[in-house]
Amino acid sequence: MNRAPTITSYEVIDLRFPTSDEAHGSDAMHADPDYSAAYVVLRTDVAGLEGHGLTFTLGRGTDVCVAAAERLCEMTIGLTLAEITRDFANFWRRLTSESQLRWLGPEKGVVHLATAAVVNAIWDLWAKAEGKPVWKLVADLTPEQLIGCIDFRYLGNALTRDEALRIVEANEPDKADREQRLRADGFPAYTTSAGWLGYSDDQIRQLCREAIADGWNAFKLKVGADQQDDRRRAALIREEIGPHRRLMIDANQRWEVGEAIEWVRALAEFDLWWVEEPTSPDDVVGHAEIARAIAPIGVATGEQCQNRVIFKQFLQLNAIAFCQIDSCRLGGLNEVLAVMLLAKKFGVPVCPHAGGVGLCEYVNHLIMIDYLRIGASLENRVCEFVDHLHEHFVDPCVVTGGAYRLPQAPGYSAQIHPETLAAYRYPDGPIWRERLGAKP
Amino acid sequence: MNRAPTITSYEVIDLRFPTSDEAHGSDAMHADPDYSAAYVVLRTDVAGLEGHGLTFTLGRGTDVCVAAAERLCEMTIGLTLAEITRDFANFWRRLTSESQLRWLGPEKGVVHLATAAVVNAIWDLWAKAEGKPVWKLVADLTPEQLIGCIDFRYLGNALTRDEALRIVEANEPDKADREQRLRADGFPAYTTSAGWLGYSDDQIRQLCREAIADGWNAFKLKVGADQQDDRRRAALIREEIGPHRRLMIDANQRWEVGEAIEWVRALAEFDLWWVEEPTSPDDVVGHAEIARAIAPIGVATGEQCQNRVIFKQFLQLNAIAFCQIDSCRLGGLNEVLAVMLLAKKFGVPVCPHAGGVGLCEYVNHLIMIDYLRIGASLENRVCEFVDHLHEHFVDPCVVTGGAYRLPQAPGYSAQIHPETLAAYRYPDGPIWRERLGAKP
Repeated sequence: MNRAPTITSYEVIDLRFPTSDEAHGSDAMHADPDYSAAYVVLRTDVAGLEGHGLTFTLGRGTDVCVAAAERLCEMTIGLTLAEITRDFANFWRRLTSESQLRWLGPEKGVVHLATAAVVNAIWDLWAKAEGKPVWKLVADLTPEQLIGCIDFRYLGNALTRDEALRIVEANEPDKADREQRLRADGFPAYTTSAGWLGYSDDQIRQLCREAIADGWNAFKLKVGADQQDDRRRAALIREEIGPHRRLMIDANQRWEVGEAIEWVRALAEFDLWWVEEPTSPDDVVGHAEIARAIAPIGVATGEQCQNRVIFKQFLQLNAIAFCQIDSCRLGGLNEVLAVMLLAKKFGVPVCPHAGGVGLCEYVNHLIMIDYLRIGASLENRVCEFVDHLHEHFVDPCVVTGGAYRLPQAPGYSAQIHPETLAAYRYPDGPIWRERLGAKP
Repeated sequence: MNRAPTITSYEVIDLRFPTSDEAHGSDAMHADPDYSAAYVVLRTDVAGLEGHGLTFTLGRGTDVCVAAAERLCEMTIGLTLAEITRDFANFWRRLTSESQLRWLGPEKGVVHLATAAVVNAIWDLWAKAEGKPVWKLVADLTPEQLIGCIDFRYLGNALTRDEALRIVEANEPDKADREQRLRADGFPAYTTSAGWLGYSDDQIRQLCREAIADGWNAFKLKVGADQQDDRRRAALIREEIGPHRRLMIDANQRWEVGEAIEWVRALAEFDLWWVEEPTSPDDVVGHAEIARAIAPIGVATGEQCQNRVIFKQFLQLNAIAFCQIDSCRLGGLNEVLAVMLLAKKFGVPVCPHAGGVGLCEYVNHLIMIDYLRIGASLENRVCEFVDHLHEHFVDPCVVTGGAYRLPQAPGYSAQIHPETLAAYRYPDGPIWRERLGAKP
């Protein structure tokens, strides 16, 4: 019996970039993020074959995610890749329903972020073993194999396994055509790089002009700290991008429900496509109330929505018009597939959240998978792109002319250069030793 | 200026009891719990004055909660008790919205469990400094002071600060009468000790008879693993307790929405008062569907409901008939007060979850606070009691004649004997050294 590759050991690295030095990533709720990751390496008995995965964090507390990822990595030791992937849904449930660890979630917060790092590392391993990028590995699965990766627990009143299978089967005939289209045109992206709260007006204008020159057609502005300031900046961006490009706003959970409705109406004249995270990511009922009040402006959320059960409810209550899956907030690719299928069932486009560290690399695969196998449309779909920190990746995402391009290398694209892992490891990498030593 | 007491240092202990040796605490989702706690000690510059607090866990992963609690404890160092308590809502928000840590929740899972341990330790410290049990400390706050402990963020579309204040003010006139009643009669409890899945029929019968002899009038049965077995055990308990005592069932999240409806109907003939945790604790919409279908049997949930925003929605959608707050799942007493006020607003009785380690000690205060200041009624209220592990507490809860009795000692009652902390510390306490050493 072929036992290879077998997972033989793991390492989890606390990796932090001191991005709070500049205003990159600043928003109404996160003033000083240090883009970070709990970074998992699964090693095997096959020389040179490893799975790398990460979950994105903001600095402090990355050690907490590392501790959780270590507990989950322990559950992979001694398993062959085939033992995991031949009933992947079952393995996923074993991770997420471990009888003692599940109390810490269940399926939310730190343990679920850590689940993403481990599960994404397994997909990276699987894809490398097959010699394919993850999107292509998934593109080539049979419908039964794809559905077999998904735990449908708690979805029964919205989407059954059989319905999901029929969605995937119905997309088979034109799959090859869509792959050709992706190879030619990529998948449409939008940029948040111009709209961070910490930027000056001149910076915003300059970034808009550069982005338009580079082919971008959709722009997102961070709002929620001060309404008059938001109106001024929205007017400024609309002026720069003209009447036909799309403008979205992102409040990063700053508002009460009633406040969100009032604030969005005060910005509506700038022709908004969506408002993102208007209030608590837990408040499905509140989002539904906002959605009814601000139509036709759409509500978008998802980057801090904990699992498929929350997304199910957002869709059931017509609370979101755009489904912003996060590659690391959900429990890895398996649960992302579940949410994509739910979104398809309810007719809501998937527009992934990205940015941070590695999220753009991950979503570069996810959008292709959704287009090839599930959503199967480009209508009203755009994927976030933020141009930070990609230089640290072995196989960084390629975004040109306002579109993500198909990844080529085997794996899930989130592998980071060993030099970066050594330099930015917290607290003992040289970047941090120097900074921490410099403090009084 | 009086700077005392100032928090000067902290310690967080990974404390685990090997309860999985027996079937105590076994249910449909948690087969082998080792009742555990991340245990926080906040030390001050006043000799002998410490705050002790804990969050309950199930064994593996307690270290993850410890790591999170350490990050939060760091934020208390150098603060005086007065700096924290004079605007307690603001301090609570600083903990739960720390700009880098909040990504790990926000306000859910590991970081929120850890928040409970730290916040509960602060209440313990405050009460000890005042020389009162926590329930009495809260009973003696002015309405403004009490409301000043609560962060109302994200509640605006269900409960405003002013409405909350009026609820508390309206309860003032009869508060002293209710305190007298509590001193005389205590607060009604129910027992789960008879109904664990792992127990034999003979054990269940024996435990029912003992409980009736001890004055218990409400009983809870764990269900969800096997419907025929559940019917047999429900019939057995109903036979033992007679037609007039209350019987509840608890499925510990085992079911899909449709399955829950079918299963509860199959047990309805045994005259059920409530069904607890019929499905995912995240599924507000699903609970509402179940509630409509199984009325007049009530839906109860809460022990794994992450925060006030989830409870708000359960109440808005009429999804629960019993509000089962958890003293450690919510972010400490401050957020428990918010949920009690929401429940009062929507006319739903608060029936706290307890058991585990220290939860009975905590809820012993919470039920008194709800009765004195917020809910102000005993109608349809019962508080869970499980008779395990109380011997490890310095000031254990007292439950006699089926009722919780008013705590007497200063503090929040969750302080554990130093001998226990030393013996059960994981992995280096003697109890664990021996067990871990004994494994191959």
